Amino acid sequence: MPTVYITRKAHFNAAHRLHNPQMSDEWNRETFGKCNSPNWHGHNYQIEVTVAGSPDPETGYVLDLGDLNRIMHEHVIDSCDHSNLNLDVDFLSGIIPSSENLVVAFWNQIQPHIRGGELVSIRLIETENNSVEYRGE
Amino acid sequence: MPTVYITRKAHFNAAHRLHNPQMSDEWNRETFGKCNSPNWHGHNYQIEVTVAGSPDPETGYVLDLGDLNRIMHEHVIDSCDHSNLNLDVDFLSGIIPSSENLVVAFWNQIQPHIRGGELVSIRLIETENNSVEYRGE
Amino acid sequence: MPTVYITRKAHFNAAHRLHNPQMSDEWNRETFGKCNSPNWHGHNYQIEVTVAGSPDPETGYVLDLGDLNRIMHEHVIDSCDHSNLNLDVDFLSGIIPSSENLVVAFWNQIQPHIRGGELVSIRLIETENNSVEYRGE
Amino acid sequence: MPTVYITRKAHFNAAHRLHNPQMSDEWNRETFGKCNSPNWHGHNYQIEVTVAGSPDPETGYVLDLGDLNRIMHEHVIDSCDHSNLNLDVDFLSGIIPSSENLVVAFWNQIQPHIRGGELVSIRLIETENNSVEYRGE
Amino acid sequence: MPTVYITRKAHFNAAHRLHNPQMSDEWNRETFGKCNSPNWHGHNYQIEVTVAGSPDPETGYVLDLGDLNRIMHEHVIDSCDHSNLNLDVDFLSGIIPSSENLVVAFWNQIQPHIRGGELVSIRLIETENNSVEYRGE
Amino acid sequence: MPTVYITRKAHFNAAHRLHNPQMSDEWNRETFGKCNSPNWHGHNYQIEVTVAGSPDPETGYVLDLGDLNRIMHEHVIDSCDHSNLNLDVDFLSGIIPSSENLVVAFWNQIQPHIRGGELVSIRLIETENNSVEYRGE
Repeated sequence: MPTVYITRKAHFNAAHRLHNPQMSDEWNRETFGKCNSPNWHGHNYQIEVTVAGSPDPETGYVLDLGDLNRIMHEHVIDSCDHSNLNLDVDFLSGIIPSSENLVVAFWNQIQPHIRGGELVSIRLIETENNSVEYRGE
Repeated sequence: MPTVYITRKAHFNAAHRLHNPQMSDEWNRETFGKCNSPNWHGHNYQIEVTVAGSPDPETGYVLDLGDLNRIMHEHVIDSCDHSNLNLDVDFLSGIIPSSENLVVAFWNQIQPHIRGGELVSIRLIETENNSVEYRGE
Repeated sequence: MPTVYITRKAHFNAAHRLHNPQMSDEWNRETFGKCNSPNWHGHNYQIEVTVAGSPDPETGYVLDLGDLNRIMHEHVIDSCDHSNLNLDVDFLSGIIPSSENLVVAFWNQIQPHIRGGELVSIRLIETENNSVEYRGE
Repeated sequence: MPTVYITRKAHFNAAHRLHNPQMSDEWNRETFGKCNSPNWHGHNYQIEVTVAGSPDPETGYVLDLGDLNRIMHEHVIDSCDHSNLNLDVDFLSGIIPSSENLVVAFWNQIQPHIRGGELVSIRLIETENNSVEYRGE
Repeated sequence: MPTVYITRKAHFNAAHRLHNPQMSDEWNRETFGKCNSPNWHGHNYQIEVTVAGSPDPETGYVLDLGDLNRIMHEHVIDSCDHSNLNLDVDFLSGIIPSSENLVVAFWNQIQPHIRGGELVSIRLIETENNSVEYRGE
Repeated sequence: MPTVYITRKAHFNAAHRLHNPQMSDEWNRETFGKCNSPNWHGHNYQIEVTVAGSPDPETGYVLDLGDLNRIMHEHVIDSCDHSNLNLDVDFLSGIIPSSENLVVAFWNQIQPHIRGGELVSIRLIETENNSVEYRGE
C-alpha cells in the first residue's frame, strides 16, 4: 500500500509581541528589536498541516480533507484568528509566541485528533520570507 | 512623450482593531464582529504605490524607484511597521484603521513628496482576499 | 469625500467546455481546439469584485466586505462551485462559457445587489496566464 | 559527489468527479459531498516532479530539465490536460481520481522513464489549499 | 455589446544593464548604482498584455488567446528570451533598457498586430516589487 | 527538546550563461541550447535557507532570523546580486553556474557560519517552474 502525504493549508490573522516577562525591558528590546514593540504588531499567518497514510480503496482518501480542516479550525484557528497570541489563547499561556514555539504548540493541539493517518509535519508561514516547520521530533 | 505608470510594492506588519470610540461597545461588536476583538489582531500589509510620468531621455526612468521606496518608508512604513495602527502612528490619530481609511491617510502622507511624476494610485492589500485602492479623487 | 475602490476575491472550481451547439462539431473542434474536448475540462476560477464608494465616517467602510462576500456567494459562487458551467447553472443557460461571457453574466448577477457603492469591475482569473475583466460598459 | 534534488513544475486543466461506481449513489453523495457532483467539476492542477542525483561535471546538470519536462508531458500531461480524468485517460481507468490516487498513478507513469537520477517525489497541487505528495514508498 | 478586457501573461528571462553610452562612466555609476554593474545582471520578466473588445457571439471570444500569445511571442518574447536586452534585440537598439523604455518598445512591437480588439495596456513586471504599465498615451 | 526547522528566503538578480569552456562552442550550443546564449541572460533568483535546532527557552528562537539573513547576505547575496555569475563572483570561479552547482557552492559559503543550529537545506528557485535543493549530502 502506498503512503501518500496530504497537506491542508489554512489562514489566521493575529497580533503578537516577542517578550519574555522574566527578563528586563532592556533585555527584551535588545533581544527582539522591533518584534518587542510594546503595543503589538501582527501577521497573516498560514498554517500547513501534513498527514501521511494509505489511501482508502473505497474513497481514494488518506483522510477527508474536510475533517482535517475542521480539526485545524477547532483546535487552532478558532482560538487564534483575530486574537492576541500573547493574551487571548489558553493553550499558548506562558509561551513566548515566536513562530518556533507556536508551531510546536499547534502540533500538540492537533496531533491527538488525527485519525486514519500520521501527523508528520506542520509548517507555519509568518511572512513571505520567514517560516518554520515542526515534525514532532 | 509616452506616459508610463510605475509601481513599487513594500510591506509592513502591524496590529490594529476596528473600533469607533464614540459608539458603544455593543455597537462596535455588532458592526465589526471579530475585527473589533479587544486585544487587537494584525496583518502583513502590502502597499503598492503607482506614479505616472514620462521617462527621462537620459535615464529611461520616470522616477528613481529607490527614491520612491525611500518616500514610502520615511512617510508610511517606518512609522507603521511593527506598530499598532490605533495607538502608535501620529498621522493615524483619531482615524478608525479600516483599509479604506488607511489608504487615504497613506496617500496624504506620500503625495506631497512625489517629484517628477504624478501619484495616481495607492493599493493596500490587507489579506489574500481583501484589498483597497485610492486614486486621489 | 474620497472615493475608495474595495476588492474582494473568492474562488470556485468548475468544469466547462467551449462549444457552440448551433455550429458543427468540426467547426467547434477547429475554433476551440482542446477547449472543445467533449468530456469537459475544468479550472480553479478566481473572481475579484471591485466596488467604489466613500468610506462611512462611523465605520470606515465603503461596504462591509462580509456583505460583499455573501452577495458573491449567493448570486455566483454557490451555483458555480463544483458545477458544470455548461449544464448546471440556470443563469448561464444558453451561454458559451468563455471567460468573457462568464464575467459579463457574473456582473449581471451581482450588480443589482450592490448597496452603498457602485460596482466598477469584475475580474475572472481562469488560469495563471489568462484573465478577463468587465467594467459594465 | 553531492546529491542535488531538482524539481520541475508543470500544469494541466482537467475535469473530474469523486465517485466509486461499486457503491450506491447515496453512499457517494454522503462520502464525497460536492466533489461527487454528477456533471463533473475541475481544477488547474500543478504537478512538481523531484529527481535526486549528482551534477554531471561536464554540464553541471543532474538531468536536463528539458528532458524531464518532456517525460512529464509525454507520460502524464498530454493525456490529462483538457481531459476528464474519470473518462478519458487510459492509465487512470478504474481509479477514483482523488489527488492521492492521481499522484500514485503519475509516479507509475513517470518513474520508468527517469534516467541519470532517482525519482524521489511527486507533488500534486489541486487547489491553493489542498496538495498531496508521493515518495514511492 | 459589452466591452471585455482580456489579459494574457507570458515570461522571458534576460540580461540587461542600465547604461547611457553618451554619458561618462562616473555619471552612469552615480545614476544607476548596482543596475549599472558592468557585466550585466538579469531578471525573470513577466509581461501582461490587455486587449479590449466585444465577445464574438459565435465564439464568446474577444480574441483567441492562442493568437494573442503567438503575437506576443513572435514580436517580443522570441527575440528577448535568453537574450541580452542591450546587445541582442534589434527593436531595442539604441534604447536604455529600463522597464519604462522596454514597455513602450513592446507596445510598438505588439500594437500593429492586434486584430478584433484594441490594445489598451501592457504591464511589465521586473521583480516582485517593481512593475510598469503603458497604456499607449 | 523539540527540533524546529526555520527557513529564511532572500532574493538576488543576476546574469549567467551555461557554458563549459573546456568543450567546443558546438558542444555547448547542442548541450545547453538557449541557456548557452553568448551575451548572457538572467534571473530573479530566490534562495531559501533552512536551519534545524531547538528553540532557546529564553527567546523562543532557534536562531535570530536577522543573523541568518546577515549570513546569507554577507556570504552569498552581496556578491551575487546584480552580478554576472560566470565572471564576477570569486567563490564561483571555475564553476558552470547551473542551479545545481550554484546551490552546492552557496551551501559551502553559508554552512561554516551557522551557529546554534544545523544547516539542513538550501533551495534555489531559478524560475517559477525550476528549482533545486541541496541537503549537504
